[in-house]
Amino acid sequence: MSEIPLPLGFRAAGLWAGIKKPNRGFDLGLLAADRPVDAAAMFTTNALVGAHVAVCREQLAASGGLVRAVIVNAGCANCATGERGLDDARETARLVALRLGCRPQEVLPISTGAIGAHLPMPKLRDAIPTLVDALREDGAEDFARAIMTTDTHRKLESATFCADDGEARVTGFSKGAGMIHPNMATMLGFLTTDAVLPRAAMPLLREVVERSYHRVTVDGDTSPNDTVVLLASGRRRVADGELCEGALLDVAGRLCRQIARDGEGATRLVTVQVRGAVDDAQASTAARTIATSPLVKTAIAGRDPNWGRILSAAGRAGVAIDVAHAKVWVGETFVFDEGRPFPEREPLAAAHLAKEEEVVIGVDLASGEAGVDVWTCDFTADYVRINAEYRT
Amino acid sequence: MSEIPLPLGFRAAGLWAGIKKPNRGFDLGLLAADRPVDAAAMFTTNALVGAHVAVCREQLAASGGLVRAVIVNAGCANCATGERGLDDARETARLVALRLGCRPQEVLPISTGAIGAHLPMPKLRDAIPTLVDALREDGAEDFARAIMTTDTHRKLESATFCADDGEARVTGFSKGAGMIHPNMATMLGFLTTDAVLPRAAMPLLREVVERSYHRVTVDGDTSPNDTVVLLASGRRRVADGELCEGALLDVAGRLCRQIARDGEGATRLVTVQVRGAVDDAQASTAARTIATSPLVKTAIAGRDPNWGRILSAAGRAGVAIDVAHAKVWVGETFVFDEGRPFPEREPLAAAHLAKEEEVVIGVDLASGEAGVDVWTCDFTADYVRINAEYRT
Repeated sequence: MSEIPLPLGFRAAGLWAGIKKPNRGFDLGLLAADRPVDAAAMFTTNALVGAHVAVCREQLAASGGLVRAVIVNAGCANCATGERGLDDARETARLVALRLGCRPQEVLPISTGAIGAHLPMPKLRDAIPTLVDALREDGAEDFARAIMTTDTHRKLESATFCADDGEARVTGFSKGAGMIHPNMATMLGFLTTDAVLPRAAMPLLREVVERSYHRVTVDGDTSPNDTVVLLASGRRRVADGELCEGALLDVAGRLCRQIARDGEGATRLVTVQVRGAVDDAQASTAARTIATSPLVKTAIAGRDPNWGRILSAAGRAGVAIDVAHAKVWVGETFVFDEGRPFPEREPLAAAHLAKEEEVVIGVDLASGEAGVDVWTCDFTADYVRINAEYRT
Repeated sequence: MSEIPLPLGFRAAGLWAGIKKPNRGFDLGLLAADRPVDAAAMFTTNALVGAHVAVCREQLAASGGLVRAVIVNAGCANCATGERGLDDARETARLVALRLGCRPQEVLPISTGAIGAHLPMPKLRDAIPTLVDALREDGAEDFARAIMTTDTHRKLESATFCADDGEARVTGFSKGAGMIHPNMATMLGFLTTDAVLPRAAMPLLREVVERSYHRVTVDGDTSPNDTVVLLASGRRRVADGELCEGALLDVAGRLCRQIARDGEGATRLVTVQVRGAVDDAQASTAARTIATSPLVKTAIAGRDPNWGRILSAAGRAGVAIDVAHAKVWVGETFVFDEGRPFPEREPLAAAHLAKEEEVVIGVDLASGEAGVDVWTCDFTADYVRINAEYRT
């Protein structure tokens, strides 16, 4: 596999700073632009927030939304750490700025890992100069590896599109399985592009996140540290703004599917399709209710096309549903149609669940025209084992 | 253990009618009053409902809230079964009424079991006369066993209180673990008393359910068949209405704790205490969010006093929380207090989780005066195994 490149104007690096135990891989990553660039960031909706959430908000306000670098540590969430936690995050940003030669407010410090422990600042003070010196145009892989916690593989995706003077690029990074790790915390996403953004960074990021990161769920547990950052170096002019938006969505969507597929203990990537909803909000509510139902997810782990659990989850979502005309499908097989079950079709549906690694389940609520797809994974005994035994 | 008695004016029976496979225990139960009695019933909020929900509503409207008998089958939910399902439920009630010699609308037919299958009416037609003939004043145990599905033991509780002319009694029955069995469906509850109710049956039942059945959660999956019925024979006059209400709450609460303790694969009954909430609604939202968090529940299965997961679940509940003054406790140990963790206390908290079968976790949101207790269970690999392998 050839190295995935960064967009023009970005460099990256990763190393082991000693925050994680030895032999657990890199734990400190840096993603830097050659000059301060257009940026936007979105954070967790949890009322408990990691120190970096407050500090990043301060930084973005102070810099007017210009960012030179993002430094990310794994292995320590710096969450529930009080004033000292805020100071540590601020110092981390200052240390990077000093070595890079930029203003401190242009650096976003981001943390992921266990809640309740302080950042090992002596180790960060030691490592940061080395990390800055290690920045390279081909450092994407190292950065992607440095932000991993319980991920089984690094999540790095890229796409190109036509710019006025050649090819523009979006490269994105993610870690974690979102709501699955509030302790070994967090879903993180970093989207970089060399294109001039077709519109203001913040509304653009909101739109992309709404259609990607907000459509992944593993266990419904939102982390205090969830963060998505968009950085645009503006080195490529793009006549057709939709190309840029499309590439961002494409890369973010692929990262999200990787997150769902890498859910703890998961054996199946599950796309939950809801159709026939009254409006987008109801479609989304129904899809999330199905996608977080332990009974639906354990049925998929058991390769059981259990339409009763799917329909029942839709039914308790509090959305309009006309059961007499509703449909439920598994793969391409309608196992419940116009209000009645078709048990004779279940073997086909079961075969889909057994054979495919990416499976589809869906419900038509028969109440309107709106629909949505949400990504999740199945729910296995290994998920419980990982989360029961972790920390013990 | 001596037999638990029914209140005056009630008889009960249970038998195997062949709805479940042989050697799986009774599957048809009957609870009957000697004459039509004051009744109220509450049903699932799921938009998908079992046939009995619609038919019971018809019956109660037609009888003016007077009920002579409740017939319950296990092994078949009669849900997603269309018009035929409604007809089958109505016929079941008629068959009981015919043999008992009452009006058909005075019988409530209730079903629990797998979704999507029709009731085996020939078997019911055969069994119902025998079942009516088997009614006995000491039939409580048989009825309690007849309504079980995946329950590991029958759930039957009783309490007495002072009536004007001796002793009044409340006897209650439950099955299932509520939201845990939407397929082998359903949480059912039956509360009987010989007391004259101190106020109208429906608001009284609503109050009792709000403070009992609405405070149990196993996996957040509300069944299409959930039903609680209150029946009062009025044979005992009680001067102090609060005694009757207290006994109903006591019995319902004990049944709910049994439900949580009997959650599929559970090893711990967990009481989730929320304090310091702005109001009751926020207390309840926070408590349910914690009690349904897979990460909190797997931590308890691992005997890990993981306050980060508890606090994070409270944080994402969308309620007011002042993290800087919040507290988290496990047993009687504050593992997080006034915004900071106390790792040195965690061994004490871990010992509580390891030693006790009934454990307590709690959060003070530091935002107001309201509080609530909710019951749930831990979440083990056995839960996943049971729900993944069931039906396969």
